[in-house]
Amino acid sequence: MDKILRIDMGAEGGPRMTEAPLGDYAGMGGRALTSAVVSKEVPPLCHPLGTDNRLVIAPGLLSGTTGAMSGRLSIGAKSPLTGGIKESNSGGQAAQVLARLGYAAIILEGKPRADELYVVFINKDGVKISLAPSLKLLPNYELVEKLKSEYGESIACISIGPAGEMKMSAASIACTDMELRPTRHAGRGGLGAVMGSKGVKAIVLDDTGMKMRTPKDPEKFKEANKVFVQGLRSHAVTGQALPAYGTNVLTNIINEAGGYPTYNFKDGRFDGAHKISGETQAETETARGGLATHGCHRGCVIRCSGIYNDKDGHFLTKQPEYETVWAHGGHCGISDLDTIARLDFMDDNYGLDTIEMGVAIGVAMDAGIIRFGDGEGAINLMKEVGRGTPLGRILGNGAAVTGKVFGVERVPVVKGQGLPAYDPRAVKGIGVTYATSTMGADHTAGYAVATNILKVGGDVDPLSAQGQIELSRNLQIATAAVDSTGMCLFIAFALLDQPETFQSLIDMLNAFHGLSMTGDDVTALGKSILKMERDFNARAGFTAAQDRLPAFFKEEAIAPHNVTFDIPDEELDQVFNW
Amino acid sequence: MDKILRIDMGAEGGPRMTEAPLGDYAGMGGRALTSAVVSKEVPPLCHPLGTDNRLVIAPGLLSGTTGAMSGRLSIGAKSPLTGGIKESNSGGQAAQVLARLGYAAIILEGKPRADELYVVFINKDGVKISLAPSLKLLPNYELVEKLKSEYGESIACISIGPAGEMKMSAASIACTDMELRPTRHAGRGGLGAVMGSKGVKAIVLDDTGMKMRTPKDPEKFKEANKVFVQGLRSHAVTGQALPAYGTNVLTNIINEAGGYPTYNFKDGRFDGAHKISGETQAETETARGGLATHGCHRGCVIRCSGIYNDKDGHFLTKQPEYETVWAHGGHCGISDLDTIARLDFMDDNYGLDTIEMGVAIGVAMDAGIIRFGDGEGAINLMKEVGRGTPLGRILGNGAAVTGKVFGVERVPVVKGQGLPAYDPRAVKGIGVTYATSTMGADHTAGYAVATNILKVGGDVDPLSAQGQIELSRNLQIATAAVDSTGMCLFIAFALLDQPETFQSLIDMLNAFHGLSMTGDDVTALGKSILKMERDFNARAGFTAAQDRLPAFFKEEAIAPHNVTFDIPDEELDQVFNW
Repeated sequence: MDKILRIDMGAEGGPRMTEAPLGDYAGMGGRALTSAVVSKEVPPLCHPLGTDNRLVIAPGLLSGTTGAMSGRLSIGAKSPLTGGIKESNSGGQAAQVLARLGYAAIILEGKPRADELYVVFINKDGVKISLAPSLKLLPNYELVEKLKSEYGESIACISIGPAGEMKMSAASIACTDMELRPTRHAGRGGLGAVMGSKGVKAIVLDDTGMKMRTPKDPEKFKEANKVFVQGLRSHAVTGQALPAYGTNVLTNIINEAGGYPTYNFKDGRFDGAHKISGETQAETETARGGLATHGCHRGCVIRCSGIYNDKDGHFLTKQPEYETVWAHGGHCGISDLDTIARLDFMDDNYGLDTIEMGVAIGVAMDAGIIRFGDGEGAINLMKEVGRGTPLGRILGNGAAVTGKVFGVERVPVVKGQGLPAYDPRAVKGIGVTYATSTMGADHTAGYAVATNILKVGGDVDPLSAQGQIELSRNLQIATAAVDSTGMCLFIAFALLDQPETFQSLIDMLNAFHGLSMTGDDVTALGKSILKMERDFNARAGFTAAQDRLPAFFKEEAIAPHNVTFDIPDEELDQVFNW
Repeated sequence: MDKILRIDMGAEGGPRMTEAPLGDYAGMGGRALTSAVVSKEVPPLCHPLGTDNRLVIAPGLLSGTTGAMSGRLSIGAKSPLTGGIKESNSGGQAAQVLARLGYAAIILEGKPRADELYVVFINKDGVKISLAPSLKLLPNYELVEKLKSEYGESIACISIGPAGEMKMSAASIACTDMELRPTRHAGRGGLGAVMGSKGVKAIVLDDTGMKMRTPKDPEKFKEANKVFVQGLRSHAVTGQALPAYGTNVLTNIINEAGGYPTYNFKDGRFDGAHKISGETQAETETARGGLATHGCHRGCVIRCSGIYNDKDGHFLTKQPEYETVWAHGGHCGISDLDTIARLDFMDDNYGLDTIEMGVAIGVAMDAGIIRFGDGEGAINLMKEVGRGTPLGRILGNGAAVTGKVFGVERVPVVKGQGLPAYDPRAVKGIGVTYATSTMGADHTAGYAVATNILKVGGDVDPLSAQGQIELSRNLQIATAAVDSTGMCLFIAFALLDQPETFQSLIDMLNAFHGLSMTGDDVTALGKSILKMERDFNARAGFTAAQDRLPAFFKEEAIAPHNVTFDIPDEELDQVFNW
């Protein structure tokens, strides 16, 4: 994992690839690497769909090793959704396979002159780029079946659906899971549209004949990994809650806390929450012969995913995540799990961010396009997106565009990106992250819900303005670092509560790479990433004015706690003032 | 003209009006007043369609006097199109009538709680605000007929069409002309959507029984006005070219200069230009019993408008302006004047900015929605806008949204506003204005075409990067001042070339208001307005990054001169560094 593959999709005579050592980017992985490349190589004012943008696909520092949880793939570019820098990461198999193939990153550059579609295939023998007109507008599931028939069953795929080809700003990039299904997505920020603009339909990876990456100090690495896994298994969130109910364990918790945004952020609790909770979901999955606990990549010990079958016991979709269940569920007043599962499948199949689509549909409901609670209506809207009708293209370009086109005033976005499943008025720490993250509204950028609600890593009152800035700051720094390791962010629950688990991660990094990093170095790494990202955004024209929630969060109090978002702007401006 | 009428549309129990003296705003008119109110009273980060935005409607310092050319009405708000401050001004009768009714400004505040529609009627007896549900979604022409039947023939109307009610970002505000037709528009920046969000369908003005405003020194005023009119009549542009052919005299001139953006800014000349030129237009108008020269308001001595009849001699629309003929014509590859005239009528009737709509349709053509040159297709697209279909709403929200929704990379906008009818690569001075104006891409904000092409106010080579910064700076300053007087900007041609005409305008201001302003004071006024506007935009989150043309203007050379926009960013940043 010491080289970068660059493919210039706009080269004369067709795509031209070059391979080179990491060079300036030595020692970087995951988000550190994607953000460094974007920050250094992409002109901040370029068009996100233009020739000057670059799509950077990077496994983490520990991807492709025997280390547990190291299956995250970071993908970065200038975002068509936010106009700023973007790193979105995905589970599935691709990170590990790409790392074992020896690549620290694939960088797609330029864009084809004509409307051409390519597949990139990488195995132990090298890289092959082929024109693939027959794959045009194929949805992800059908696409992967075709790729399997052509490239065999030992592959991992990184692909876009029709949404990415149609360059929608809510388009995701799919990664296949252990069952070779396109269920894991780098969802946020419209990176699928960037891949679409590069004319790449899929990157197919086969690591047959390649070895696990070997640590500098195998014994120490093995030992550290053991401590690390024990730590994950012993923590209540990663050892019990997530395995049992998946991320959707949060529906009841957040609803109870009054921070469950309902009817496009008009209420903090949803009547139908119990019908779509993780508990109900797990029960349904088990009863129908699906799976209530399942990993998305080999080496996962948390196993927060699952398999959601339909009433007849046929696969319908992977277990929808909490944020998906919220976006397509409570946010839209929909309380039918099967409907939500169908919407989740459509998102994966068309290649769309479930959060952005759910938020956009909720905004469309506020505009009166369909009524709140209309599940079949939501499915029909999604079909429009898949077909690329004008209405579908509006929705497929996200909540901000939907709000603008339909003249809606209450549009829950920051930097153009839809707010996820936690109301910033009732969970103020996450509100600080939404407002200030370089990524636009993003719960994963600094998951203050952990400390506000789950009481992980301390206890900061979610309803008070006190302590939220520091909380969000520290979490944003730590997250940027974790996002560089290839580790699933869910390890953070154990890291925050258990110093020995945090130390074991550092030990793994040190043993693998022959380093002598300390906790302070991890903090320094996180800060350096955020600094690069902030710098890119500043050059792209972002100021403190973009580090704000929409005004209605300050003005409209939300039930049941009757709270507004009351953290002063001046305090928000201190998040990165460390 | 010494009082401000404020109407709080969101007051408990229905709209509540208050009248007060100018107070802090004493001595201001037109753009100076609208920008001062917006800058001082509107929170820069508010939603443009929200309760906190204000729509400010202000005649100029000389409106309602016997002074020639004083018919411009300034309308300001935070723009739904650009997100920044906006002043858009319109000809027609409204400015003079409103001024004679004694109002320096009407300010619409708040917004109705329910989906209510009001008409505001003002005459010598006072102000009456009525619910008007029967006017819902009426197009402007039909609306004005209804208002005439209710309020009589001695009115002037300020109104919105369905586009404004649907809160489209390209929605205009219409003012009636001397024939009581809704042909003059504050087109740019989506101010019609702001009026729509305030629930005001029309403001009906009747100055029967009111007097002309009287100067402090009537004799001096009369004398200055005489010199002023003589100056306008003796200048080649205002005395000959504009009266003979209207603004569309520019089609042949700009096309010949290679600065006529064709097929969405892909060429600098249009094959079909001669078919849609001002010369052809005037000939057609005359032959069909229309008018080739006509004023848009009483007191106009330039008379650059006209009446465009159909083949059967029936009124089709007012004489389309040069920028309209370009936007719906050359930009879209359409070379049929009747088609363009129909599109112009539809814009006026639905209440839409002709420039923004033409640019948006051209972008849609680039996206393949219809082919370039398809006039009937363009008319059908406009019908979609009028009906508010999803496709219509996309287009009606302007070129930037259209480009975003359809994944188009080449979108000619600055700050979200479509570029007008002069290619910034071949007319570089106007490129500087497009890039740096507080208004987004706006030719009227600093009309460097005058000096680059028409050789008015000097001679600055349009193809050279030299001298354009200073040219644009000086014109932007002068324009901001002129926009405050209520004077039609076309007086500037004579002002720039003839010191005695410039002096006569100052003499008019001094004689009317009892002042002793000098040329330096006019410059200081212009600078102070730009400073307020820049300050608002900065607080709204604008930086130098927004003072840029889209990248493709720097990268793609345009025929016939094979030039790019090559003025360095650092120089653009010096425009307001005076």
